[in-house]
Amino acid sequence: MLYLVGLGLSDETDITVKGLEVVKKASRVYLEAYTSILLVDQAVLETYHGRSITVADREMVESNSDEILHDAANVDVAFLVVGDPFSATTHTDLVLRARELGVPVRSVPNASIMSGIGAAGLQLYNFGQTVSMVFFTDSWRPASFYDRIKENRSIGLHTLVLLDIKVKEQSMENLARGRRIYEPPRYMSVGTCAQQMLEIEEQKGGGVYGPDSLAIGAARVGGKTEKFVAGTLRELCDADGELGPPLHSLVLLGRRTHELEHDYVREFAVDKGTWDRIWKADYQGKQ
Amino acid sequence: MLYLVGLGLSDETDITVKGLEVVKKASRVYLEAYTSILLVDQAVLETYHGRSITVADREMVESNSDEILHDAANVDVAFLVVGDPFSATTHTDLVLRARELGVPVRSVPNASIMSGIGAAGLQLYNFGQTVSMVFFTDSWRPASFYDRIKENRSIGLHTLVLLDIKVKEQSMENLARGRRIYEPPRYMSVGTCAQQMLEIEEQKGGGVYGPDSLAIGAARVGGKTEKFVAGTLRELCDADGELGPPLHSLVLLGRRTHELEHDYVREFAVDKGTWDRIWKADYQGKQ
Repeated sequence: MLYLVGLGLSDETDITVKGLEVVKKASRVYLEAYTSILLVDQAVLETYHGRSITVADREMVESNSDEILHDAANVDVAFLVVGDPFSATTHTDLVLRARELGVPVRSVPNASIMSGIGAAGLQLYNFGQTVSMVFFTDSWRPASFYDRIKENRSIGLHTLVLLDIKVKEQSMENLARGRRIYEPPRYMSVGTCAQQMLEIEEQKGGGVYGPDSLAIGAARVGGKTEKFVAGTLRELCDADGELGPPLHSLVLLGRRTHELEHDYVREFAVDKGTWDRIWKADYQGKQ
Repeated sequence: MLYLVGLGLSDETDITVKGLEVVKKASRVYLEAYTSILLVDQAVLETYHGRSITVADREMVESNSDEILHDAANVDVAFLVVGDPFSATTHTDLVLRARELGVPVRSVPNASIMSGIGAAGLQLYNFGQTVSMVFFTDSWRPASFYDRIKENRSIGLHTLVLLDIKVKEQSMENLARGRRIYEPPRYMSVGTCAQQMLEIEEQKGGGVYGPDSLAIGAARVGGKTEKFVAGTLRELCDADGELGPPLHSLVLLGRRTHELEHDYVREFAVDKGTWDRIWKADYQGKQ
């Protein structure tokens, strides 16, 4: 049996009791560690579970899944995924491959950032599609998120923006020379995300959002040091200090809001006066 | 401290290790049991945790939250919520009340149906706003879900439909006479939901969806007997037998789909030929 086990969002104790039992009994345990990360590392997990865990990088999961699935029709294999097992496409792919091999699959759900973001105080019912933001380079500034946000905002919905993480990336030079030397991991901050969003709005000029649009920066959701900072996109450009270390996410508010959301999120506002003023003008009572 | 502890979706072992510790140490433990239910009952939870748990009904949470929050600035109170603590508005309200009383709050995330539905094989990124479906009566057929689905479909997104549960409801007569006699619980099935959806489409005639629109019926998501049935809305009207006992949810597909989704969900199709034909005509390659 292949077990896809969600680890939740933050540390080793976010696994469910059901998941814990699976890890205990499995013949082999893999940890997917490239679409997201826990706030603790592999060594902490290994100590906690009292067994060795193989880190599965993108290459292994996408091109060498047969190693993971080896003999899984007869023995139990646990594939650990940060968050919920089905939050990334990759794992859908792994299940399809397991089906082809006649390997039964079971999954153990857990918190995902897509539901965990509810802790910021916005109603999950009113979120539209989720978008991703990657690190811009001089020559690569993918802006497909802009049209998606436009769609969400056209019907009044909030948008969760998931921020890029770069784990086990090679420099162009090392890649070209086939050297397996990896860059240090990089995690996008809310500040960088807000800046990139404003840059694209300035370039496209569609008026989808602007420096005064309200948003929430979220850091380490679900963890003991979870932190939310609410404000305008302009304010959030400078909120990284307050938010602290990774992982970060950002939510851009839609106009379809509820008074409860105002009260709840106001607590996190950089400047409560600004928050109240803009809320009243652009969000309150809109549908 | 007030701890909001997510219980996950299915049984007593879906609690996280972190949540388990909170329940162990708390002075008082409440279970919110009216916005959703676990597939096991209170007695199973009490045996599992080895302590008594007070069931908090809607009245207690909404009108008598001070009982729950009593002395919580000094002692730990655990408030257990099926799914994730922030999936229902009610809990946002409880946190606001705690803040007023100077009670610190911490939450322990868990799987929610809003992320757990990813197990059906559709990408969570492409879901729009979530809607609710209530049991229709002769005189009350609220159809606000229709306009929401229309909005989602206008931008190609999937829609998760959460189905009504009636717990601790009084008949009109008992309510009028002030008798605390409650009706047996009722849980809406996928079949009823699909029928009500088609009824409203027929009435409104907006062409938002129809009998041939593709959807997925989901039962007991995250549980050992989890079951998905995919088909047209017409087919899902008759799929309750195959889906089995509650809880059910339904997903109406948006046109923005991926080939991986086709392959994954096809496995659950009532009739693979119908699934392939309609997918090809109405969904494949659409954006």
